[in-house]
Amino acid sequence: MIEVRAIRRGEGHLIIGPTQQIAETHWGGAGAVKATGADFEAALFNDAPIVGAQLAFVDGAFAGSAFWHRSFSTNYGKEIMYLEDIAVMPDFRRMGVGEALMKAVANVAVARGYPKVYWLMMAWNEGARKLYERVGAEIEDGNCYCMLEGKALTDFAA
Amino acid sequence: MIEVRAIRRGEGHLIIGPTQQIAETHWGGAGAVKATGADFEAALFNDAPIVGAQLAFVDGAFAGSAFWHRSFSTNYGKEIMYLEDIAVMPDFRRMGVGEALMKAVANVAVARGYPKVYWLMMAWNEGARKLYERVGAEIEDGNCYCMLEGKALTDFAA
Repeated sequence: MIEVRAIRRGEGHLIIGPTQQIAETHWGGAGAVKATGADFEAALFNDAPIVGAQLAFVDGAFAGSAFWHRSFSTNYGKEIMYLEDIAVMPDFRRMGVGEALMKAVANVAVARGYPKVYWLMMAWNEGARKLYERVGAEIEDGNCYCMLEGKALTDFAA
Repeated sequence: MIEVRAIRRGEGHLIIGPTQQIAETHWGGAGAVKATGADFEAALFNDAPIVGAQLAFVDGAFAGSAFWHRSFSTNYGKEIMYLEDIAVMPDFRRMGVGEALMKAVANVAVARGYPKVYWLMMAWNEGARKLYERVGAEIEDGNCYCMLEGKALTDFAA
């Protein structure tokens, strides 16, 4: 049985596994993840958090998570939701966990009065594309992700 | 002379013009923008804002803006910055306003201790690509922008 619920105090460390899963398939590998459970705990549980997470369990075992943050649309002039990460742990794939997490995220957005949830997907990720199409998402190809980080950021800022 | 500074209380309405400029070239046209000056004012000036803006002036005339929001990296486990919009008004293009806005944004990020600034760009936007390459940004093609909004969002959440 799949259960999805909001993360609770003391569970910040559970976000590490899914973050490492995404790092394995999308960028520098699990070892490149710098975040700690304490980082997530501090970000999730404070007076004015900008982030939130939903956790999925299958028969009580942790199966994956969706991690989102508050965003803002200059078009709407309103707060919206950005889905930063959604990941299902390897032993729990093809069971509907991803869709259950997406639905929980959509419900949080509606409950908070957000008119929109958005997220990024790599164009090669056909499995993700199928899930997102199934839940009714609009998918726009042809985007580029741009970043300034580390030395490139401090050099330019100087 | 180009001057760039943080937006001040009472200037929220100045964000409308740049937002309409982007809507003209990127999506539904200026008329599709729903945001009002009061929306920006409320989002920018409250006890715990998640957004910020830098304004550019050329010889005292409003020339463009960069609108950003607080974001979070699950890799760093830290807050980072998302640059939502950067736009230069038509009369002030090719004067270095875009680069001056980018530098101001980079400085805000460094001052806030953010390790990273990221943003999206449409792959066809060669002018923007040149600017971002010039400032040292890393640009990753092959991304898709996915969204659930309006009826698609409420239908799926139900």
